Amino acid sequence: MTNQLKTTIDSIQSVEQAWFDKAQARLDILTKPPGSLGRLEEFARRIVAITSNEMPELFKKAVFTFAGDHGVAEEGVSLYPKEVTRQMVLNFLNGGAGINVLARQADADVVVIDIGVDHDFGEIEGLVTKKVVFGTKNMRDEPAMTRDEAEKCLVVGIELAKEYSLAGYGIFGTGDMGIANTTPSAAIASVITGKPPAEVTGRGTGIGDKELKKKVLVIQKAIEKNNPDPADPIDVLAKVGGAEIAGIAGLCLGAAASRKPVVVDGFISTAGALIACKLQPATVDYIFAAHKSVEIGHTAMLDQMGLHPILDLDMRLGEGTGAALAMMLIESGLRIYREMATFESAGVSK
Amino acid sequence: MTNQLKTTIDSIQSVEQAWFDKAQARLDILTKPPGSLGRLEEFARRIVAITSNEMPELFKKAVFTFAGDHGVAEEGVSLYPKEVTRQMVLNFLNGGAGINVLARQADADVVVIDIGVDHDFGEIEGLVTKKVVFGTKNMRDEPAMTRDEAEKCLVVGIELAKEYSLAGYGIFGTGDMGIANTTPSAAIASVITGKPPAEVTGRGTGIGDKELKKKVLVIQKAIEKNNPDPADPIDVLAKVGGAEIAGIAGLCLGAAASRKPVVVDGFISTAGALIACKLQPATVDYIFAAHKSVEIGHTAMLDQMGLHPILDLDMRLGEGTGAALAMMLIESGLRIYREMATFESAGVSK
Repeated sequence: MTNQLKTTIDSIQSVEQAWFDKAQARLDILTKPPGSLGRLEEFARRIVAITSNEMPELFKKAVFTFAGDHGVAEEGVSLYPKEVTRQMVLNFLNGGAGINVLARQADADVVVIDIGVDHDFGEIEGLVTKKVVFGTKNMRDEPAMTRDEAEKCLVVGIELAKEYSLAGYGIFGTGDMGIANTTPSAAIASVITGKPPAEVTGRGTGIGDKELKKKVLVIQKAIEKNNPDPADPIDVLAKVGGAEIAGIAGLCLGAAASRKPVVVDGFISTAGALIACKLQPATVDYIFAAHKSVEIGHTAMLDQMGLHPILDLDMRLGEGTGAALAMMLIESGLRIYREMATFESAGVSK
Repeated sequence: MTNQLKTTIDSIQSVEQAWFDKAQARLDILTKPPGSLGRLEEFARRIVAITSNEMPELFKKAVFTFAGDHGVAEEGVSLYPKEVTRQMVLNFLNGGAGINVLARQADADVVVIDIGVDHDFGEIEGLVTKKVVFGTKNMRDEPAMTRDEAEKCLVVGIELAKEYSLAGYGIFGTGDMGIANTTPSAAIASVITGKPPAEVTGRGTGIGDKELKKKVLVIQKAIEKNNPDPADPIDVLAKVGGAEIAGIAGLCLGAAASRKPVVVDGFISTAGALIACKLQPATVDYIFAAHKSVEIGHTAMLDQMGLHPILDLDMRLGEGTGAALAMMLIESGLRIYREMATFESAGVSK
């Protein structure tokens, strides 16, 4: 493991219970029945604990959309051809994609990272170029990446989290773009949770029954062929993962190391978060699960981390769209905590 | 029934399927797999249909928080004394309550209406004075209101919806304040859904087991004593309802008559919406259910109207807090619909 990766993983610490208690004490003097704002209060407590700050400021937000291609796309596991990854990167840069629209509403910046697209964009305004691979290999036949490539992708995510943390951002969202990337995500879900591929593999962009059957088979074959070690998350990431998934895992680690909350989007992002939590279990203290994806394998991964998603809106787009929405609700919790009057200040009987 | 009430109820029309089809056609050319934004797409379709407009503008928002007192509070069915209704009205006007905080985030105005508080506020800045009663009577012993009072409260809501609709507001939220008002709401739920009081009565502000048992008994007695007719929603509203619940019911009717979406908050607001839908079933086409309340009777009422809540955040504060949050997500759907690039404009392969 590279030195930077090891140092980051070792530096991550669990949040302290004392901060939850301090936050709770304030929540209980606000003008509402105790606990009546439910999960908004949970979000406030967690933000206080994550930031070790009794009165956290409203945060500057960024959603990191990592883009990468997948060799396994050639197996026909997606509705869309591989060039759509490249085309969607350009759509992100032009502000026309779902994540752009929702991030504008949430007042979050969208950071688009080429970490593994099978296309040379050259110098292009707004694109963060951190390319580690020109697409992964077809994991059905060989490892998707080398261990070294997987580690490089993790470091990309870690460095971005540190850079944006230093630049004053207070909350991060994860997002992904990569045609066929529900396939490696389901493979990771299967290997780490121990569930058979058929139980964690869904329809992705919306494939039919025949293609779904094939997708499950491809995942089975990829796992048989590469034999990833569930106890070695980087081995799993390299053999049946993807560059953008690794970038997301790195972002989660970097956020936790910087004591910043990270809002994990849907199925693909959760596969990345799961790898991060396997590398360092304390990472979970910094993660908010944005939403429950339509993908059937999502809940198994969330359960493994003990995370309960904020939203359930039948979404399955990725890009960070769920994260952008959930950020608004996490901010709601923080605003409640910061802005509500107390029983005393408002002269309300307790 | 007063003339204005009858005219409004008769004027409400179901939305037309053709608008859903038009909205769907646009959603399907946006740069995302078909249906992948789940309920955000549903929200967009509904807004198009409700407004009969193929490209609706982003809407100006208002949350209407109706305040009223309840004679039944003297039975000890709440954690808080009755004067808290008055105190919280002042908290709303000072911007310190939960609804103020969340409405600021959602960029919604909060309209605070005294429709039935047992206190004379006199002239007070920011308060909309539409008082029909100085608190209701104790429904355990006698009807909470007369039929005439209930109708007057309905008209208050209708007129507010029409006034704000004319003033350029495009979406309404409902909210309530009234110590003890989960008691009449549960009574309405029981009478209209036919479920026994014990199945639809919850802990409100957070009462213990003993108080909950008493609350159920009080509701049983109120229903026995007053014998409200489930087929006559105004009879139910008058005998076991409340002024703010009636105002909310009127707001739903007025919104539907003005072809504006109305976001119904939690348990108390849903009791009002249920009355509105009983008076005019087409009203439901204009209603969004904001969230699933912790109150156990909430789902039975939502099911009766065929509504599926947007959020599930373990909230039970009322005031319109859930409505303010849900408005942001409904707006997300509309923004997606308005702002996303098409496959053609973005040069993305379909």
